[in-house]
Amino acid sequence: MSGNSFGKLFSVTTFGESHGPAIGCVIDGCPPGMALSEADIQPELDRRKPGTSRHVTQRQEADRVQILSGVYQGVTTGTPIALLIPNEDQRSKDYGNITETFRPGHADYTYWHKYGVRDPRGGGRSSARLTAPVVGAGAVAKKWLREQYGTEFFGCMRTLGDIEVPFQSFEHVQANPFFAATADADLLARMEAAMDELRRAGDSIGARIDVVARKVPVGWGQPIYDKLDADIAYAMMGINAVKGVEIGAGFASVAQKGSEHGDELTPEGFVGNNAGGVLGGISTGQDITVSIAIKPTSSIRTPRRSIDKDGNPVMVETFGRHDPCVGIRATPIAEAMLALVLIDHALMQRAQCGDVKVGTPKLG
Amino acid sequence: MSGNSFGKLFSVTTFGESHGPAIGCVIDGCPPGMALSEADIQPELDRRKPGTSRHVTQRQEADRVQILSGVYQGVTTGTPIALLIPNEDQRSKDYGNITETFRPGHADYTYWHKYGVRDPRGGGRSSARLTAPVVGAGAVAKKWLREQYGTEFFGCMRTLGDIEVPFQSFEHVQANPFFAATADADLLARMEAAMDELRRAGDSIGARIDVVARKVPVGWGQPIYDKLDADIAYAMMGINAVKGVEIGAGFASVAQKGSEHGDELTPEGFVGNNAGGVLGGISTGQDITVSIAIKPTSSIRTPRRSIDKDGNPVMVETFGRHDPCVGIRATPIAEAMLALVLIDHALMQRAQCGDVKVGTPKLG
Amino acid sequence: MSGNSFGKLFSVTTFGESHGPAIGCVIDGCPPGMALSEADIQPELDRRKPGTSRHVTQRQEADRVQILSGVYQGVTTGTPIALLIPNEDQRSKDYGNITETFRPGHADYTYWHKYGVRDPRGGGRSSARLTAPVVGAGAVAKKWLREQYGTEFFGCMRTLGDIEVPFQSFEHVQANPFFAATADADLLARMEAAMDELRRAGDSIGARIDVVARKVPVGWGQPIYDKLDADIAYAMMGINAVKGVEIGAGFASVAQKGSEHGDELTPEGFVGNNAGGVLGGISTGQDITVSIAIKPTSSIRTPRRSIDKDGNPVMVETFGRHDPCVGIRATPIAEAMLALVLIDHALMQRAQCGDVKVGTPKLG
Amino acid sequence: MSGNSFGKLFSVTTFGESHGPAIGCVIDGCPPGMALSEADIQPELDRRKPGTSRHVTQRQEADRVQILSGVYQGVTTGTPIALLIPNEDQRSKDYGNITETFRPGHADYTYWHKYGVRDPRGGGRSSARLTAPVVGAGAVAKKWLREQYGTEFFGCMRTLGDIEVPFQSFEHVQANPFFAATADADLLARMEAAMDELRRAGDSIGARIDVVARKVPVGWGQPIYDKLDADIAYAMMGINAVKGVEIGAGFASVAQKGSEHGDELTPEGFVGNNAGGVLGGISTGQDITVSIAIKPTSSIRTPRRSIDKDGNPVMVETFGRHDPCVGIRATPIAEAMLALVLIDHALMQRAQCGDVKVGTPKLG
Repeated sequence: MSGNSFGKLFSVTTFGESHGPAIGCVIDGCPPGMALSEADIQPELDRRKPGTSRHVTQRQEADRVQILSGVYQGVTTGTPIALLIPNEDQRSKDYGNITETFRPGHADYTYWHKYGVRDPRGGGRSSARLTAPVVGAGAVAKKWLREQYGTEFFGCMRTLGDIEVPFQSFEHVQANPFFAATADADLLARMEAAMDELRRAGDSIGARIDVVARKVPVGWGQPIYDKLDADIAYAMMGINAVKGVEIGAGFASVAQKGSEHGDELTPEGFVGNNAGGVLGGISTGQDITVSIAIKPTSSIRTPRRSIDKDGNPVMVETFGRHDPCVGIRATPIAEAMLALVLIDHALMQRAQCGDVKVGTPKLG
Repeated sequence: MSGNSFGKLFSVTTFGESHGPAIGCVIDGCPPGMALSEADIQPELDRRKPGTSRHVTQRQEADRVQILSGVYQGVTTGTPIALLIPNEDQRSKDYGNITETFRPGHADYTYWHKYGVRDPRGGGRSSARLTAPVVGAGAVAKKWLREQYGTEFFGCMRTLGDIEVPFQSFEHVQANPFFAATADADLLARMEAAMDELRRAGDSIGARIDVVARKVPVGWGQPIYDKLDADIAYAMMGINAVKGVEIGAGFASVAQKGSEHGDELTPEGFVGNNAGGVLGGISTGQDITVSIAIKPTSSIRTPRRSIDKDGNPVMVETFGRHDPCVGIRATPIAEAMLALVLIDHALMQRAQCGDVKVGTPKLG
Repeated sequence: MSGNSFGKLFSVTTFGESHGPAIGCVIDGCPPGMALSEADIQPELDRRKPGTSRHVTQRQEADRVQILSGVYQGVTTGTPIALLIPNEDQRSKDYGNITETFRPGHADYTYWHKYGVRDPRGGGRSSARLTAPVVGAGAVAKKWLREQYGTEFFGCMRTLGDIEVPFQSFEHVQANPFFAATADADLLARMEAAMDELRRAGDSIGARIDVVARKVPVGWGQPIYDKLDADIAYAMMGINAVKGVEIGAGFASVAQKGSEHGDELTPEGFVGNNAGGVLGGISTGQDITVSIAIKPTSSIRTPRRSIDKDGNPVMVETFGRHDPCVGIRATPIAEAMLALVLIDHALMQRAQCGDVKVGTPKLG
Repeated sequence: MSGNSFGKLFSVTTFGESHGPAIGCVIDGCPPGMALSEADIQPELDRRKPGTSRHVTQRQEADRVQILSGVYQGVTTGTPIALLIPNEDQRSKDYGNITETFRPGHADYTYWHKYGVRDPRGGGRSSARLTAPVVGAGAVAKKWLREQYGTEFFGCMRTLGDIEVPFQSFEHVQANPFFAATADADLLARMEAAMDELRRAGDSIGARIDVVARKVPVGWGQPIYDKLDADIAYAMMGINAVKGVEIGAGFASVAQKGSEHGDELTPEGFVGNNAGGVLGGISTGQDITVSIAIKPTSSIRTPRRSIDKDGNPVMVETFGRHDPCVGIRATPIAEAMLALVLIDHALMQRAQCGDVKVGTPKLG
C-alpha cells in the first residue's frame, strides 16, 4: 500500500536508503522446492553494480548479497526469502551541501513536501541504488520461470542520446559497457566518445532500452485492469528516470491502419508481432517486447537554478559520483522488472486455471 | 487480484459483458458527505457513449446510469456505490460467425487459451463497452477532487493516424466529434474526410491522446513502486487498444541533456515541465501531463488471415458496428482513469500524512 | 480496503443497504469452466431468507437472485459474476423514529461518528440483510469446492440462550426451524416455547453455532498471518452479532495438558481433532471445526436508555420486524463464510504449489 | 498474499526461521516525523524474550534489534523501517531427531504436505520465535498511537490451566513472571508450583489472556468485512497456539438477553461494555477488550504416537528447550497484534474521513 512492495503472489518488499547501513528486500511467495543460493543471484547484481566501466558511477560497491531466510539445504521452502546487501561506500559528506536545497529533476522537492522530512544522503530512498534489491529478486524470478517454462529475458540499449544503436544480436550485449546488441566497433567507439565528452562537460544524456521475454506461455494476464501490458507499464515506469513505455508497435501504431497492425494468424502461428505479445491484456505466446525511455541523469555538474527550503533562489551544482547516463545500467533492471511481472502472472494463472498445459485450453 | 478492480482506497470493481443484461461497477471507498446523484455522472457517460457522430460505432445505447447504493438523501454515506448500466442494444447475431475463429488483433485467441471458454458476443468482457462503468466511477472521482482541491481534468486528440492536431485550447474539445483542441475548420474537415475514407475502405486507424490534470497538490505518490507516474502508466496501458504511454517529455527525453531536461526552480515555481508533474514518483504541484498511443481498431471489414479453434486456416472479416478509430472515444476514458489514479493517491496521502495543507511541509 | 470485499483470489465485493433498491455482490476470481445458474444459488438463499418460520423476522423478501455477468451458456467464463437481489419489502416508515437517536447494541452510534452521515433505514449497511449476497457467493464457492475436492459444509445450532442442543446428526438440521442437529421432539418443543416467550416479552437471546467443513485437503493455509484459522476467525467475527470464535477445542484447550491436547498420529490418521483441522495455520486434512457465539438481537421492543445526536437522554424502543434470535439464521451464513475462506486458500495453494495431488508432497 | 505480511496501511512483512542467521521485518507505512530509535523498541522485545524466568524456554537470545532503514537523524521518514534481530543461540542438533517424523500438535505434518519440503530446525518458520519481529513492529505502532491519540495497551494472564487469576490491576503485571494482574502472593506461589510440577512431568498447559486498548477514538473500523473486531480476531487467531478469541462479553453473550447485553447510553457515556468497544465493526470509544485461549505447548517430553514420512508408526519425544506454557509470553505478543490492528484502522480512518477530531462527526 505504501509503495514499497511489488507483486501480489510473488511479492517483493524493499527497504533501505542509499547511505544507510544496508538495503535489501523480502520476497514472499517464491514457490517451494527450487534450488537457490547466492550464486544464482550475484551474477545479475554484478551486471547492474556500479564501477564496472568509466561510463558509470565510480561508487565502489561489491553489492554482495546474503540470503537470510527461506532457503534450507539449498532449496526454497516456500517461506519469505530475505536478501541483504550491505552498503559499503557511503560518503555522506558528498551530499552535505544539498540538504537545504532542491536539485532540479530530483525527488528532493517532492519528498520534502510529501513527508515534511527527508533523508538527503545520496538521494536517500529515491536513489537508483534501490534498484539493486529488485535485480536480486528478479534473479530469483528468472530462475523459476526458466526452470518451469523455459522463459528467457533479454535487454539492450537502442538509443544513447541521439545515437541510434541497431540491433544485431543479444549475444553482443555483455561484450560492451553499454548493453548494446551490436558488435559494430565504430559505433561503440562513437558511443564511448560521446560519453567521454559528456563527462567532460559535466552533463548527462537519456537512453532508450528494449527488453524482451521469450517463451512466455499463452494465457498470462487479466482482462480488464491487471492486464499483462498494464502491469508491465507500471513496472517499467516505476524504474527511476523512466518517462515512457511502449509495448509492441507502441507509438508507431498511431499511424498504422487496422489492416496493417492486427497480427494475422496462420497454422504456423502469428505473422508479425505488432501486439508485442499481448492481446486483450493476456499473453499470446509470442515474445513480449517492451521499449522504455530513460531521461538524462538529473545529477550533473552544470550549475542550475533552484530554491532553498525557504523559497530563496540558489544555484545548485551536484558533485559526487554519478552515472552520466542512468540508462546504461537500466538494462538488467528492466529485465528484472519484466521477470517480476511475469512470475506474478504465472502464479496467478495457476490459481485461476490450475496447471494448464501450455497452449492447451481446458475447462476446470 | 483477478484483474477486475482498480484502485486501493478508492476501489472500482467492474462487471459485465458487451451483450449481457447489464454492465456496472462497485465503488468502494468514496469519502462520505459528498452530494451525488446520477446527474453528476451521466454527462461524462454521454461524452463517451456510442452513436454521437457518424465517426463512431452506431450501436444505440443510452448508457443510462443508476445508483443502486451508497447514497442517502443525495449524499454519499461512505459505503459502496454501485452503478448499473443496462445493455439495451444487444445484437448477438452480428457476432455469430466468430465463435469458432480468432479475429486478428483481438483478445479472442488469448481468452480462449487462458480460460478454455469465452463469451464471444461483441467481444464479451474484452469489449471497449466495459470502459463505460469506468467513466462513471471517474465522474465520481472527478467531483470529489474538484471539490476538495480544485483539480480539473482535460483531454484531447493530438494525432489521428498521420494527421497532427495542433493544440489550441481545451475549450474547443466539445465542439467537434474528435475531441480535438482546435477550432481550425480546415483541419477538422480533413479529419472528417479521412474518417469517411476509412469507413469506405473498411479499415481503421490509430490515434494519440493527451490528458492533463491541473491543480494537483504537491506530495501525491509513493517513492518506489506505487509511483504516481507508474500508476498512471498502469491505468493508461489498461485502456483497450493503448500501446504506449508517456509522462512529461516522454520519449523525447532520450535525446535531451540533463542540463535541458531537469526543470529548474525559481521562487515563482518550476521553469518548464519536462517532468510532467512528477518527480521521484510524487506530484510536484504542476500539471500532470500524459500522452497515450492507441492502436487502430482491430474490428475491420477487410478480410484477414486467421485460424479456427482446430488450427485450420480461415479468412476473417468483421461485420457489425465498430469504431473505425477507437481513439476518438478514448479521451473521456483516459481522463476518467487519470482521475481514478489521483483520488487513490489523494486518499493515501491523507492516510500517510494526515490532512496536510497543500504545499506546507509538516511533521506528524 | 474500505471493508466491503472479502477474499483475495476468490474475491466478493458486496453493495447495498437494507432499504435501497437492491443488494448484491461481484465475485471476482471464480475459476472458468464450471456449470452455474441461479438454480445453484437460490436454495442457499432460501435457507437464510426471512419469513420461513414464526421465529424469525416477518419481513417478506423472496430474495430472488439474478446473475448479471460472468456466465455464458451456463458455464463460468472466469470473468466477474455479479449477483443482484432486489429489495422488495422496504418499509422505511418503520424506522422513522430512530434517525435522531442511537439504538443500544446497534451500529447507529459508531456509523454516525465515523462517517458523519448514515442511512438509518433498517440499519442501512449494517443490517443483517447484507449477509444475503454473501450466502449467494458462498453457494458458488461451495459448488466449486464440492466438484473439485468433494468438500462439504455443515452447520447447526448448539446452544439457544441457556438451552444446550446436543448434536445427533446434520441430517436433522433442515427438519426444524432452528438448524438444530437433533430430532428430539421434546427439546425442539422447549426451544419453540422459549422463543414464543421471548417474542411476547419483546426481548431477544443469543446462540452458539457450530460449522464444519469435511474433505478439506491437507495443505491449505499460510504459515504466519493468513493462517487458515486466522482467516476463519476473521470471517466468522465479521458476521453480524458474532462475539466469539473457536477452532477445534477452542477455550477448552486452556485447561488441557499438552499430553492431552496434541492429536496423535497413527498410520490410520489422526487420533482426535483438538486442532479443529488446522496445525500451524495449515489444514491437516481432518474436518475443519468452528464454533461461534452470537449475541442477542439488539433490536428489541423493551424500552432502553440512549441519547440523541445532541447528547440528550432519550428512551428507545425498536418496533418493526426483527429476529428475536439472529443466531437462528446464522447457520447458512457461517457455512457460506467458511466456504469463502476455503476457496480462497484452495486457489492460493494452486498458485503456490501447483495442482498438487491431495496428500502427496511434491517439490516444484 | 503468501501470508507473511500483516496490515494494509501500516504493513509488517516478516522473514526468518528459528535457526537461520536472523529474523526481522519490514514496516511499510509508518507515518513520517515520529522520533524513533532502538530504545523505543527494545523494552517490548525484552518483555517477550526467552530466558527471563525458569518458567519459559531457556534458550539464550538477547533479541537485540537493529533499525536498518526508514529513520534519519532519529526521526521516521515515511519510508520502510527494516528491523533485524540476529539469532544467537541456534542449536540445530537438538532437533536432529525430528526431521523424519511429525510431532503431534505441531506444524510439521502440514508444512510437509503443503510445501513438500520444510526447515525442521526449531520449528523453522512456525516457531513462536517469529513473534519477536511482530513485537518490535508493535512497539512502533504503540508509540505512534500513544503520541497521536493517547492510546495505551494492557494485557494479563487470566487463567493458567485450571487456575483462575482474578484481575486486580495492570500495574502488577510486570512484577511476576506470568503477566498476572494480581499481587496475591499465595496465588502466584500456587502458579509457580503448578509450573514446576509440569516441568517435572514433562508436560505443558494452556492459558487464557486478556488484552485491552484504552483511549481508542470512536469511528475506527469498517462496516462489512474489515470490521475492527474481525481484524482483531484475525490478528489474535494468527498468534501461535491460539484456539479461541472473544470480544467483549464473548461466549457469555450466548446466554444473555438483548435487554441485558446491549449497552445503554447516557449523556455520560455507555453503561457497560458487553460490546467490548466495537459496534457494527466500528470502535465506540470505549476500551477494546479481547480474550484469547492458548493451547498447551505441543513440544513436551512425554512420548507420543506419531508417524514418519513413510507412514510408519513411531514414538516422538521432544527434547530441547521449550516453554511449558506458551501462554506466559503471549501477553506482549497479543498487545502488539492489537496495536498493529488499531494503527491500520487509524490510518484508514484518516484516508476515508480526513483528520476528524475525535468524537466530532463531520461531513467531508
